[in-house]
Amino acid sequence: MPPEKSHDAIHAQRPAIAPDLSLIWTAIVDIAPREDLGQGPTGQRYIVPILGGKFFAGPGIDGLSGTVLPGGADRQLIAPDGFKTLDALYEMQTDDGTVLTIHNHVKVDETAPSALYRRSVIEVTAPSGRLDWMNRRVFLGTLELAHPDREAVIIRSWGQAG
Amino acid sequence: MPPEKSHDAIHAQRPAIAPDLSLIWTAIVDIAPREDLGQGPTGQRYIVPILGGKFFAGPGIDGLSGTVLPGGADRQLIAPDGFKTLDALYEMQTDDGTVLTIHNHVKVDETAPSALYRRSVIEVTAPSGRLDWMNRRVFLGTLELAHPDREAVIIRSWGQAG
Amino acid sequence: MPPEKSHDAIHAQRPAIAPDLSLIWTAIVDIAPREDLGQGPTGQRYIVPILGGKFFAGPGIDGLSGTVLPGGADRQLIAPDGFKTLDALYEMQTDDGTVLTIHNHVKVDETAPSALYRRSVIEVTAPSGRLDWMNRRVFLGTLELAHPDREAVIIRSWGQAG
Amino acid sequence: MPPEKSHDAIHAQRPAIAPDLSLIWTAIVDIAPREDLGQGPTGQRYIVPILGGKFFAGPGIDGLSGTVLPGGADRQLIAPDGFKTLDALYEMQTDDGTVLTIHNHVKVDETAPSALYRRSVIEVTAPSGRLDWMNRRVFLGTLELAHPDREAVIIRSWGQAG
Repeated sequence: MPPEKSHDAIHAQRPAIAPDLSLIWTAIVDIAPREDLGQGPTGQRYIVPILGGKFFAGPGIDGLSGTVLPGGADRQLIAPDGFKTLDALYEMQTDDGTVLTIHNHVKVDETAPSALYRRSVIEVTAPSGRLDWMNRRVFLGTLELAHPDREAVIIRSWGQAG
Repeated sequence: MPPEKSHDAIHAQRPAIAPDLSLIWTAIVDIAPREDLGQGPTGQRYIVPILGGKFFAGPGIDGLSGTVLPGGADRQLIAPDGFKTLDALYEMQTDDGTVLTIHNHVKVDETAPSALYRRSVIEVTAPSGRLDWMNRRVFLGTLELAHPDREAVIIRSWGQAG
Repeated sequence: MPPEKSHDAIHAQRPAIAPDLSLIWTAIVDIAPREDLGQGPTGQRYIVPILGGKFFAGPGIDGLSGTVLPGGADRQLIAPDGFKTLDALYEMQTDDGTVLTIHNHVKVDETAPSALYRRSVIEVTAPSGRLDWMNRRVFLGTLELAHPDREAVIIRSWGQAG
Repeated sequence: MPPEKSHDAIHAQRPAIAPDLSLIWTAIVDIAPREDLGQGPTGQRYIVPILGGKFFAGPGIDGLSGTVLPGGADRQLIAPDGFKTLDALYEMQTDDGTVLTIHNHVKVDETAPSALYRRSVIEVTAPSGRLDWMNRRVFLGTLELAHPDREAVIIRSWGQAG
C-alpha cells in the first residue's frame, strides 16, 4: 500500500477552480425611510420597511421576474466600530404567481481597503415545482443604492444557474 | 421636480458587475468515517468527526496558513429526495497562534443539471487584530473529496481579499 | 485526594429545582387571513401578516405595556406529518416609546398525547436602558387563538422577571 | 353581529395559565479546561471540549438515560459588560443506542437582581421512532457547576413530557 499523500502534496496538485457566478436575478426594492429603534447592547438598531418593487431574471434564467411584495422589512444593526449588518426578510412573486421568501443577510464594511464592501448571503425558500432548484443553491448577493433616482435599493443575486 | 425613474429604467441603466472572488484559503481536512445517527423526520442523519488537517493561504493573502484543529464535526442530513446539507463546525489555528472558528453550511445537490453541485456559505469568527477583516466578509465555499489519496476533504473559501 | 464523585453520585445528591416562570407580558396580536405560499420541499408554506395589537405587562413587571406595531409577519410551515412551525417577526412599542423586536419560534404539535401543544421560544431585542435585561433572558411562549372574538392570537411570554 | 371585543376585554377575560415544566432529563457532562480563543469584536471567545458523561431520565420519562458522547464542544462568548452566551453542540446516546443531537444555547447573566442567571433553550434532534416527540417540543435548560466534585456541569432539561 502506497503511503498517503501529505496535505502539502494534495494542496500542490489540485488546481483551484473558482466557482462560476451567473446573475440569477436583479430586484429593485422600494423602501420607506429608515426608522431608529434605539441603541442596543451590540449596536444601533434600525428598521426599513419594504414597500414593493420589481425583479428581473438574469440572462438565460427562465421565469424569474415579477414583483416584490409589500410587507417585508430590513432590520439593521450598526456596531460601535461602524460595521453594519442588514437582515432583510420579504416575499417576491413571479409573473406566474409563484411566491419566493427571500432572506438576505448583508454585511456592510465601510473600512474595506478597496472600496465600500456590501455583500450578502441570500436564502431562498421556493415552492416545489419549476423553481425548486432555488432551495438547493447558495446565492451571493450584492447591494447598491438606486438613489438619487428613488428611495430604492438594487439587490442582485449571483450563483450557479439551474 | 422630475418624475422618479421606473423600476424598468433603473434596471436597464445600471450595469450588473459580478462580485470578484479571490481564493482566500484552501483547507485539507482529515475526517473519520461517517457515523449513522438514524433516520429523522426530515432525513437521514450522519456525523463525521474532524480529526485535523492543514490550511494554506490563497495567492496574495497574508498569514492565513496553519493547522485544522481536531475536535470539530460535520453534521449531515440527507433529505428523502437526496438533497444533502452539511453543517461543519471546527477551529483552525494560524501559524502565529490565532484561532478561527469555521462554520461551514454546505448544500450538495446531485441532481443539478451541469454536474454535482457542492457549494457553501462559510462563517468565520476571528479575534480582533490582523484577521478581524474576516468577521466582516461573506465567504463562498467549495468542497471536493481528496480521496482516493486519503480520508480528507478539500475546502476552499472564496471572497474579497482584505 | 479523595476520588472524584461518580456521575450517579452527583445525580443522586443534587436536587432538581424547576425554573420559576413568571408571566412577563401578554400580547393580543391582530392578524390578517393566512395566505398560502405553496407546497415546499419540507412542507406547506403560509404567511400571516401582523396588523397591530396591544400588550400588557405581567403582574409586578414594570413598564411593559404598549402597542404591537403593524408590519410584521408570521411565516408558517406545516410538515407532511402535520407538525407545524411558526416563525413570527415583529415589533412592539411600549407606552414610553421603547421599541422591542420580537422573534417568536413556535412549535405546534396536534398529536401530543395530553392536548394540543403550542409552545415557543421568544427572542427579544431591546434597546439599552431600562429594558436591557430583556436581551439577557430566555422567554418561553404560549399561544392561544382569541377567535371567535376576533382575528387575533394571544401570545404570553414566561420567564424570570428582572 | 356583535362588535368585536377590544384587546383590553380579551386580556381581562382570558386566564393566564403558566406552562407546566417537568424534568425531562439531567445530564452530568464532563468537560476539559476552557481554552482562550482570543478577544473578538463582540467579546472574549472560549471553547470548552466535551469529554463525555451520563444522562438520566426525569421522573416518569421513559428510556431517556445513557451516555454523553465525547467529541462535542461548548463555544462561549463573554461580552464587554460581562454577559455570557454559551453555544454547546454534542451528542447523547440512550441505552438502546438512539443518538440525540443536543444544541444548547445558554444565557448567563451575573448581574441579574435575584441571583446568578443561567438558563437556556435546548434544541434536540432525534431520530424517528419512540423519541420522535423530542423533535416537536421546546426545552428550557438550567445549568449548574458540579465542581468541586469534578470538572463537570449539570444540565437539566425542562418541558412538557410526551
